[in-house]
Amino acid sequence: MRIVVDAMGTDNCPAPDVEGALLAARDFGDPVILVGDEALIKAELAKHATAGLPVEVVHAAQVVTMEDKPATVGKAKPESSMHVGMNLVKSGQADAFVSMGNTGAALSIALLNTLGRIRGVKRPALTGILPFGQTGQTVLLDVGANADCRAEWLAQFALMGSLYTRLTLKIDRPRVAVLSNGEEASKGTELIHEAIELIKALPIHFSGSIEPKDVLKGGADVVISDGFVGNIFIKTLEAGTSTLTEVIREELTANLIGTLGGALARPAFRRVRKRIDPFEIGGAPLLGINGVVIIGHGRSNANAIRNGVRQARAAVSSGVIEAIRAGLAALEPKPEG
Amino acid sequence: MRIVVDAMGTDNCPAPDVEGALLAARDFGDPVILVGDEALIKAELAKHATAGLPVEVVHAAQVVTMEDKPATVGKAKPESSMHVGMNLVKSGQADAFVSMGNTGAALSIALLNTLGRIRGVKRPALTGILPFGQTGQTVLLDVGANADCRAEWLAQFALMGSLYTRLTLKIDRPRVAVLSNGEEASKGTELIHEAIELIKALPIHFSGSIEPKDVLKGGADVVISDGFVGNIFIKTLEAGTSTLTEVIREELTANLIGTLGGALARPAFRRVRKRIDPFEIGGAPLLGINGVVIIGHGRSNANAIRNGVRQARAAVSSGVIEAIRAGLAALEPKPEG
Repeated sequence: MRIVVDAMGTDNCPAPDVEGALLAARDFGDPVILVGDEALIKAELAKHATAGLPVEVVHAAQVVTMEDKPATVGKAKPESSMHVGMNLVKSGQADAFVSMGNTGAALSIALLNTLGRIRGVKRPALTGILPFGQTGQTVLLDVGANADCRAEWLAQFALMGSLYTRLTLKIDRPRVAVLSNGEEASKGTELIHEAIELIKALPIHFSGSIEPKDVLKGGADVVISDGFVGNIFIKTLEAGTSTLTEVIREELTANLIGTLGGALARPAFRRVRKRIDPFEIGGAPLLGINGVVIIGHGRSNANAIRNGVRQARAAVSSGVIEAIRAGLAALEPKPEG
Repeated sequence: MRIVVDAMGTDNCPAPDVEGALLAARDFGDPVILVGDEALIKAELAKHATAGLPVEVVHAAQVVTMEDKPATVGKAKPESSMHVGMNLVKSGQADAFVSMGNTGAALSIALLNTLGRIRGVKRPALTGILPFGQTGQTVLLDVGANADCRAEWLAQFALMGSLYTRLTLKIDRPRVAVLSNGEEASKGTELIHEAIELIKALPIHFSGSIEPKDVLKGGADVVISDGFVGNIFIKTLEAGTSTLTEVIREELTANLIGTLGGALARPAFRRVRKRIDPFEIGGAPLLGINGVVIIGHGRSNANAIRNGVRQARAAVSSGVIEAIRAGLAALEPKPEG
């Protein structure tokens, strides 16, 4: 199996990206292809002991930044590392693409310029994977690709999310729920009510509506929402926890006793960080794209990139793309006769 | 000024409710009317030194619980403390109503059975007040009354929220923003784009779209959303901070050093709690109802109820109901000639 790693993805690229790719090559043994500015990548590789590691470099002359407009970046920068990397997957020279870069741009380049969508998919979705809950893996989608959604798209998200979670994350009979403002059937929007009717008819384990607090308790394995609500959900979660962390830091350092207490508690805080650390997961797939694409956070460290490669490998091995294609085809109305 | 306090509101009623009403009567000097089960209230009052305090009791034979269906509770329980209390305001025997009970029920009883809406208001909104930010008071609406909203309703929320924040909370020229998944005009839903066009035409200080993280930094004084998104926002915030708090507690108590560090840090944690404590605010208004109604959390303590009365007093003094009525009337198309 050959995994492409975008060397130009993280905010501090290419250092963490290259180091993470090396960790993955060492830990998993299969070839890793670094795509990006060849000179920069080679300079970075020279800082590491790479002898015997299956790492290749493919040059890409352009870099997608966080400032690039997702809708137009594919045309504006046809030689970006994302573009070149995804085309390696499209042409069969590699099996999956991993990037910590601009998520919207990656989705747009995947959808419009390179891999395209799986036959039958109405709209691909961005997924996020939360580190909370019993299994430590709750798959959320859509977390930002489609602000305005139709009920039918949400139902497809439910099917794709269920297949990914079962096949790739190896969660048996995943519980699929719809994010709502209450568990009762009367709660939610008209869109949610319509979507639930469609989801109930799918060959998945639908467990009803779920409130934010129960998502964080691991009350579902797959959580469905439109891309606007899903994005507000993950952004609010991130903002809430980082604001609280900041307030705690301020108060702990406000006097000597607090500072001492904080110092003694440091190992505990380190364990807290590890438990809620999204980098342990590494990244999440663009579901509905006709190929495995894993996107992680721009602030990712080398370990996150290694874990992103692990996610990509699991997705490829699980055959989830083919399963989504088959799953959607099975829902198509049968021709008469 | 006479404020009615629902004695049957909190989860532990009537103890915190009665104690909070007494604190308010003592601190503010004006009469407080406790409404609810007279025998229970009097038994509770007997535990306190009430001599000289301007506290009255009005009996209400029924109690709204969290299990009551908001839409039908007004008809099902016409003698509830909410019903009786709001009718005291409607008849002019009191100036405002404060309750820590079922929010949906309070809205429904206010709207359908007692006070009704301010002339011109399409839909009343639930508000929430966040303790974050520079002023420590960010007003959010709608946080749950209307899951499916029209752009015109959001624009009214913006006007009502701006007036409340300026007149009652005394924030000069409040910055009104729309909660979105990014600051750029291209972000957000169709509903948001339509609403923004209407809000721009209002005589308020519209500051654009705002992301969750900037809401928590105090980047706006009034934050507008539909009731579904607003509810997901506050519930996610609450779930995120309480999950993090729980994880910290678990890790701090996992060993002796952590426990010691935690003990030393206890005053700091207490200050953290106070900084993010919604009970310091006490409650938030049902905006658009034709009378001052302040609703707080069922877990409220006596101090929260006292602060809810303070909010109610500020709302009455500020004349915000009349200001909303006048503000909406000014937007009506003028008759020809």
